[in-house]
Amino acid sequence: SVNPDLASERQTASFSVEKLTALLDGGAEQTRIRRAVVETIESDPVFSRENQYFQTQNERYEAAVRKAVHLQKKMHEMGWTENGPEYKYIYRALSGDVAFLLHRVFMRSISVLGSDKQIAKWIPLATQHRLIGSYAQTELGHGTYLQGLETTAVFDAATQEFILNTPKISAMKWWPGDMGRSATHTVVFAQLYVHGKCYGIHPFIVQIRSLQDHSLCPGVTAGDIGPKMNFEHIDNGYLLLKNVRIPRENMLSKFCEVRPDGTYVRQGSQKINYFTMTTVRISLISDEVLTPLMKACTIAVRYSVVRRQSKLKPGEQEAKILDYQTQQEKLLPQLAAAYAFHFINDYLQDLFNRGYREIQKKNFDMLPELHALSSGFKAVITQHCTAGVEICLRACGGHGYSLLSGLPSLYTKILASCIYEGENTILLLQAARFLIKCFMAANAGQPVPPSVTYLAAVKHGKCPAKNKLDFLSPDIYTEAYQHVAVRLTSSTAAKLQDLIQSGVKKHDAWNQCTVQLVQAAKAHCHYIAVKNFAETVEKLETKAGIQKIMKHLCDLFALHGIFSNTGAFLHDGYISAAQMDMVTASYLDLLAVIRKDAVPLVDAFDFTDKSLNSALGSYDGQVYQRLYEWAQKSPTNQMSPAYERYLKPLLHNTLSKL
Amino acid sequence: SVNPDLASERQTASFSVEKLTALLDGGAEQTRIRRAVVETIESDPVFSRENQYFQTQNERYEAAVRKAVHLQKKMHEMGWTENGPEYKYIYRALSGDVAFLLHRVFMRSISVLGSDKQIAKWIPLATQHRLIGSYAQTELGHGTYLQGLETTAVFDAATQEFILNTPKISAMKWWPGDMGRSATHTVVFAQLYVHGKCYGIHPFIVQIRSLQDHSLCPGVTAGDIGPKMNFEHIDNGYLLLKNVRIPRENMLSKFCEVRPDGTYVRQGSQKINYFTMTTVRISLISDEVLTPLMKACTIAVRYSVVRRQSKLKPGEQEAKILDYQTQQEKLLPQLAAAYAFHFINDYLQDLFNRGYREIQKKNFDMLPELHALSSGFKAVITQHCTAGVEICLRACGGHGYSLLSGLPSLYTKILASCIYEGENTILLLQAARFLIKCFMAANAGQPVPPSVTYLAAVKHGKCPAKNKLDFLSPDIYTEAYQHVAVRLTSSTAAKLQDLIQSGVKKHDAWNQCTVQLVQAAKAHCHYIAVKNFAETVEKLETKAGIQKIMKHLCDLFALHGIFSNTGAFLHDGYISAAQMDMVTASYLDLLAVIRKDAVPLVDAFDFTDKSLNSALGSYDGQVYQRLYEWAQKSPTNQMSPAYERYLKPLLHNTLSKL
Repeated sequence: SVNPDLASERQTASFSVEKLTALLDGGAEQTRIRRAVVETIESDPVFSRENQYFQTQNERYEAAVRKAVHLQKKMHEMGWTENGPEYKYIYRALSGDVAFLLHRVFMRSISVLGSDKQIAKWIPLATQHRLIGSYAQTELGHGTYLQGLETTAVFDAATQEFILNTPKISAMKWWPGDMGRSATHTVVFAQLYVHGKCYGIHPFIVQIRSLQDHSLCPGVTAGDIGPKMNFEHIDNGYLLLKNVRIPRENMLSKFCEVRPDGTYVRQGSQKINYFTMTTVRISLISDEVLTPLMKACTIAVRYSVVRRQSKLKPGEQEAKILDYQTQQEKLLPQLAAAYAFHFINDYLQDLFNRGYREIQKKNFDMLPELHALSSGFKAVITQHCTAGVEICLRACGGHGYSLLSGLPSLYTKILASCIYEGENTILLLQAARFLIKCFMAANAGQPVPPSVTYLAAVKHGKCPAKNKLDFLSPDIYTEAYQHVAVRLTSSTAAKLQDLIQSGVKKHDAWNQCTVQLVQAAKAHCHYIAVKNFAETVEKLETKAGIQKIMKHLCDLFALHGIFSNTGAFLHDGYISAAQMDMVTASYLDLLAVIRKDAVPLVDAFDFTDKSLNSALGSYDGQVYQRLYEWAQKSPTNQMSPAYERYLKPLLHNTLSKL
Repeated sequence: SVNPDLASERQTASFSVEKLTALLDGGAEQTRIRRAVVETIESDPVFSRENQYFQTQNERYEAAVRKAVHLQKKMHEMGWTENGPEYKYIYRALSGDVAFLLHRVFMRSISVLGSDKQIAKWIPLATQHRLIGSYAQTELGHGTYLQGLETTAVFDAATQEFILNTPKISAMKWWPGDMGRSATHTVVFAQLYVHGKCYGIHPFIVQIRSLQDHSLCPGVTAGDIGPKMNFEHIDNGYLLLKNVRIPRENMLSKFCEVRPDGTYVRQGSQKINYFTMTTVRISLISDEVLTPLMKACTIAVRYSVVRRQSKLKPGEQEAKILDYQTQQEKLLPQLAAAYAFHFINDYLQDLFNRGYREIQKKNFDMLPELHALSSGFKAVITQHCTAGVEICLRACGGHGYSLLSGLPSLYTKILASCIYEGENTILLLQAARFLIKCFMAANAGQPVPPSVTYLAAVKHGKCPAKNKLDFLSPDIYTEAYQHVAVRLTSSTAAKLQDLIQSGVKKHDAWNQCTVQLVQAAKAHCHYIAVKNFAETVEKLETKAGIQKIMKHLCDLFALHGIFSNTGAFLHDGYISAAQMDMVTASYLDLLAVIRKDAVPLVDAFDFTDKSLNSALGSYDGQVYQRLYEWAQKSPTNQMSPAYERYLKPLLHNTLSKL
């Protein structure tokens, strides 16, 4: 039975939840396929996550390996393939709680970096799981800056082998997933030396464990890097190589080859490599970033209409906490952001599909823009969504702090997305470098890519809004965002030039502008996100109430951004103080409007109870019952030796009755 | 041997680290006592936290109980008493990793709420550890709003007993520390009923476990609430009471009593109770909030001078990451905040000591101000420091994400401080209520408490700064903060009055202003923190370079606050756009200045390696060595059954050589 406080929220939905779900999925047929996958996965006990919050790191790892192996069987059984329409829903249905994710990266790197001969040899073996692959790039002392990697691969012409070594502790491979305990092979990135000359970083296939008894190969030291904030199910590992010899053929040689006599040959264009990096950044947004935020919103919003606390009106019963303006102000902007980023993700996917088609025609013109957008949005979206999940957690008070709420695990996992696949600050600076370059070019009258043409058209006007309703006009707020993005880019470009002209060296000048460059890059992404949301809403069908509620969310997303960052808009007077008061008024009004549809808006994300795995967020809203049931199953309610060992002696003198 | 990259940072300190440590401790003698306590605790293997990151929740609990029992012995052995000068350092030296913390709350509540007779009976038993106490207030469905608690205590005149019941699941006690597995007694808060009439919430001493075999008493269901984001060492518990009878004498009756015939008598003033609540909020700031931020700063700053990444200047070696402006902008404001809040903590302690003296003289005039300040600062400091620890964690990239860095545990623990002892939003609204009241009073010419007299003197001037150096003048920035606090309070008061005058009901009007009320309360606290820091710096001795570096930190704290919240200062033009650019310039300049002393500034916090418990933060900076050594000890490097069970069958067909 559904908690009546939750049931009543669903009766007043202003739109069709089912139609919104279909919109999010990209069509009703996709919804059907997704639900079928979810049903299959969730009805299989091997894939259960029921005891996850009670398990140790070892137990989580073992379960993930078990699931990965079982998944192969399941896919075969169901006729699911890696190219089929079901595939993209499997990982989501498993909540990523499965091993051998790096096996796919191992395969992709061979496909992209290997010669045809290497692909023909290794890909079938990997596909048939006759080995388990990993990908060993990051070192203890080296992350983002690949040129700094210290592992060495020295060519020995006499034996036609490469000799791999970890020359010092900071060169130890550190973090690679699946490598700590599972992998038999890995792609090692190392500095290539031939006849004493260094040719820079190259990839090598190295076997690290025996295929017979899984023992470490001679010269290999490897293990698990220990406890982390999350990802307990993954055996992130370390790897130390001492005179490990591999055949010459194991250097991935699509682009570079060492011939038998030691001649180093470079061939083909490596540009496609950069494209791979950008696609990874875009592909993680949906599963690793948006899904957790949507789950957190679902949990926090449902809980906030079931939880009652204090009285809003004297004499009435205690109020639902979502009826407090402060609670609305915490949760509803996160909900709006989840939708905004869902639509920008669609935009980025489209852009990348177009880019990919061009690249296949050997046209690399779109690469710089794609790189900048993927870098900037990876950073902006991961940062925003991580903060959003934390806000949802805190907004649930004490119960949000219990692992049983599901929120702590969502938070500790999404947090990693700010760091992996490019640390966010570094990515924002890469986006900023592109912005500055385009700004200069645009102002010199040169052509620039579509997403930055607006930088050329610097307007010095003022915001034309006359009352608070004007701020519900997408033109008004989109232009305000555009204005700020241009202002921050142009002022930072000017500061950079001033510094250089005053004699500061270029790299020092750049460093002295980085705090402001980061702001400019964020403003650029924020502008595009707002513009894209507004354009998406424009195109929606007007039926079923969906366009109307999406328009409200778009307005909220835009006005929340202004309200939270008023200085950027007030700085040059583009928005006046009086107008900012209108923004605030409109923003606060919107909270009360969207609050009415808050539950239907999270229902539309269509998460099952099993996928939420939360005592606070279930569809029926029976929060307290579920917390109590789950707590009773906790291992902390097993008999503890602490009483006999410590408490009994402490209490030794006490009488049974006081 | 100290890592040379760290050693070089210490050679150029602009001040005496030892003298700054003494200043923070409140004198060199205090430093001596603290170090002696730390030395004693850390040299005792029972108190070791070495394996903490590898332990399960059960193991953590057992270790905490063992430590608590051992601590009794140790204190006796060392001649340490609860009133001695060592006492306040013990908890810090243990990093709070000890059981029975609620036992002290149990004792304090009896001391404050119990009659002389009750104190005479229970306190000696508790002191001698002949029982283990807890404190059961919060329920599954009820937190902050005490009047909403649902547990009942019905007086039975026939047997002279109270009958305690948990009428429904939301009434179950939930969260009390030490109650899940350890406590034998607890103070239960319940609705008192006599002859069918409800007299509201009262405290009752209830025995929950046998003193002979620790089994649950008849009618009592209790257990552990399961896994949490942190506090694994504490057995936060649940408690369900079914017709549990306790003698009439067990109702704590300093202020209210039920006579044998059922007559309800209220006596004395309960005002002192509110004071207890405020002292708890103040007392947690130092150990639970400032210490974690100081530890996080120590870890992140030391790591940032040892970690090298990318090149700042072409041709040079890779740069220390602290040399990047963006890294400075992450860490140094947190360092400044740690100092700012250390000094505001001193201020609050002084104020409370004065308040306590007044209250002992039955003068309760200071209570409203103390309540508002303790509420506001509890919220502002916990929020700021929690965000600060998270920034430190992220600033350490992948290694910060490893539990071995110590940062995840600091974060997950400090996060709870935003929720417990009053949820932050609710506390800020309590502070705001006081502000609005005082603002009205001040404008009606009535006297107001000292901390809010500034609200009466609304000035409509502009900031007089003419160049970026002017913003290093405490008068300039303190006045700017004051101006913003007044503006936000007065504009919200005006909105509130407008709404009420336009016919909106008072409680609805209040709810519609809460987002802005929260802003006003924060601005008030921020202003006082800046003002207090500036005044503290003013009074420091000018020798030993300490005043100079503290002045830099004060400037940074103030300018960072403006830089991060420009809109509040730009809104009415108090600071102009041109002046804001000066703030930005001064702020960024300061980063480069303070960066030079960053390591000495964290060294002055004087944490031992054992108390940091961090592979990244040790005094010698041997980061990579320590990460590797620790990882090897992880239980995840024990033999896993996953190979035999799942991997071997998967790899069954593979040959040993590919």
